[in-house]
Amino acid sequence: MDESDRTLVRGKLKQAEQLLDETGIDCWLVFCRETSEIPEPALPLVLGADVVWETALLLTPSGEHHAVAGRYDAPPVEELEAYTVHSYDESIVSPLVDVLDTLDPETIGLDYSTEEVAADGLTHGLYRRLEDILSETPYTDRFVSAEDVVAGLRSRKTDIERDRMKEAARLTESLLEEAVGEWTPETTESDLAAYMHERMHDEGLDSAWGWDGCPAVDAGAEAPVGHSQPGDRTLPPGEVLHFDFGVRYEGYASDMQRLYYRPEDGEDPPESLRKAFQDVRDAIETARAELRPGVEGHVVDTAARESITERGWPEFQHAVGHTVGRNAHDAGTLLGPRWDRYGSRPDRTVSVGEIYTLELGVESEWGYLGLEELVEITPDGNEYFHDPQRELRTIQG
Amino acid sequence: MDESDRTLVRGKLKQAEQLLDETGIDCWLVFCRETSEIPEPALPLVLGADVVWETALLLTPSGEHHAVAGRYDAPPVEELEAYTVHSYDESIVSPLVDVLDTLDPETIGLDYSTEEVAADGLTHGLYRRLEDILSETPYTDRFVSAEDVVAGLRSRKTDIERDRMKEAARLTESLLEEAVGEWTPETTESDLAAYMHERMHDEGLDSAWGWDGCPAVDAGAEAPVGHSQPGDRTLPPGEVLHFDFGVRYEGYASDMQRLYYRPEDGEDPPESLRKAFQDVRDAIETARAELRPGVEGHVVDTAARESITERGWPEFQHAVGHTVGRNAHDAGTLLGPRWDRYGSRPDRTVSVGEIYTLELGVESEWGYLGLEELVEITPDGNEYFHDPQRELRTIQG
Repeated sequence: MDESDRTLVRGKLKQAEQLLDETGIDCWLVFCRETSEIPEPALPLVLGADVVWETALLLTPSGEHHAVAGRYDAPPVEELEAYTVHSYDESIVSPLVDVLDTLDPETIGLDYSTEEVAADGLTHGLYRRLEDILSETPYTDRFVSAEDVVAGLRSRKTDIERDRMKEAARLTESLLEEAVGEWTPETTESDLAAYMHERMHDEGLDSAWGWDGCPAVDAGAEAPVGHSQPGDRTLPPGEVLHFDFGVRYEGYASDMQRLYYRPEDGEDPPESLRKAFQDVRDAIETARAELRPGVEGHVVDTAARESITERGWPEFQHAVGHTVGRNAHDAGTLLGPRWDRYGSRPDRTVSVGEIYTLELGVESEWGYLGLEELVEITPDGNEYFHDPQRELRTIQG
Repeated sequence: MDESDRTLVRGKLKQAEQLLDETGIDCWLVFCRETSEIPEPALPLVLGADVVWETALLLTPSGEHHAVAGRYDAPPVEELEAYTVHSYDESIVSPLVDVLDTLDPETIGLDYSTEEVAADGLTHGLYRRLEDILSETPYTDRFVSAEDVVAGLRSRKTDIERDRMKEAARLTESLLEEAVGEWTPETTESDLAAYMHERMHDEGLDSAWGWDGCPAVDAGAEAPVGHSQPGDRTLPPGEVLHFDFGVRYEGYASDMQRLYYRPEDGEDPPESLRKAFQDVRDAIETARAELRPGVEGHVVDTAARESITERGWPEFQHAVGHTVGRNAHDAGTLLGPRWDRYGSRPDRTVSVGEIYTLELGVESEWGYLGLEELVEITPDGNEYFHDPQRELRTIQG
């Protein structure tokens, strides 16, 4: 953890005070262990280091920060200079109960959520463990979900976070263009992915989602849509190459889809392909026209969805947009339909400073034509976070 | 996922049938989502791919494998050719209930555990979600912990897993020696870590635990012990350099500690330092003498602990050994003391084919002198999994 990371964490701790105040939670209790095995998504924001033994972070709206941590986990917490550290050897039980007794909070926010993955860092086993640890205390009756705290913390970007995302977006676009520059008619999907992976290694970049499926590369109409892995297909003339790609730069992700056409003999893309591309573009712009502070997520989704179906395409089977940040799919409002699997996230509203993707595609005779752009919410509406793809690009080897 | 990964997963699925039979669990239900945000530790063993939408894997002792997965997550599952795939668009609820109705299991094993991190992949939010999904069914009363299934699956290595671990151990030792070869009196802890990180990038290797703290590098007596990050310290003459390091090779980790002495003027290490090193070595050998199939974990720990305290050193504040595999700290029996934070893991027994670390150290006038070796359980006892450090090595620039 360098000084920039420590500054980032201290900024998020400050935000957490505000969010605890807003949500009326007296004490946010982050409880985790072995976070290299099962990460606690809130931990990078409020601690910035992994832990091995059972660890409890307790934060209050008045700005008290306590960390109950094992002996070997304590040093990086101390280096942060933001917590009162209570270190233990054999058992977390008594120091944890002591801190709770001192704070005596009326509500204790825990990281569980049926809907928000990023706010669901408490495993069921650790929840039971916490019930055991506190079985002789009044605190087990005071548990509430801290999902609004975590969702706010993840979706409201500080300046440092925004700068890192800008760089992630720039690098994503730049590596994509580099890979396309290396393309020849013999290049397979796997070759393109391998080239991009090599360049990511060079640049010390992680993938925004699972390494094997990032980038997704779909060459031509025969490529299966979805989170499948790049295969042995080459791109036939007169067909379309589709990428879904993002890198993670200093902990912050990007998420982008791009489309390239391989001309048969220097010809322009066929009229009907250009029309399909434009329908996707227009649907994204239709979504953008609705996207502003205060709007509910499903309204934006419906606008894009209707734009697509009115032009005779089948509906896309996902949300039109999601927040991006620590993860390609971040927490908070979802620009999605009110489907069961999205819970109440599409009913939440959009806020200034959030960064969303807008993504959709059509299943066409050229396979899946999908685009995905990043936009940032401004007081009046939204702005592209980087240059969008406004026209179908051509690829030639 | 390449063919070797698919073979690995199919081998683990076979093991799972056996473990379900042994534990009397009728159906193991792995329930997860967005595993690039919060990994489900069982998933790499039974699926080998990440998922985005809510996904349920259902496995039975008779070898039935069902996967209920979202449209875009389904393709890699289908490529595995090991599951009946039930793909959905809007909601997992009805296909999941349908599969359970078909199987009608008397017990349903879920991935939660107060003690086994690797068997605790079900978040509390997803547990609640499952209760909601199944609220109209009899299945919520049939939930049990699948911890013994997951612990067995993680700790019993197949041949492919063992080969990958062998290579991880070889690479760990080799990168350590390379870094030591680059050392000069001006080299800081951070320089050594940066060199090793660069070499890991070159080799396409991930760290066995959090990147920033792997390797841990402690130069001299003033270095703080624990999971702190490498700093600006150089190694003074007459002091000791300590590494705790492991790489992850094709998903399998290594975990090793090594000690190097910097002579003042070509002199041998002082007698008392050699004595302290030998005490650590002897305690590891004492542990090895107890380590065989059937022994309870705490017996091995006590032997090493007594060996150290009898020689006048303070007790080490951790378990003397843990399994290694998908993670540096893997599941199953712990060679540890019966302390609260270890739960019942020290009471479990050791099995053939498991791979353990043996690690301990003493707090001395030269700082923390720690060693960590990998051993493999054989029918008669155990064998080193790679060459251990038998003597204090010297470092010179």
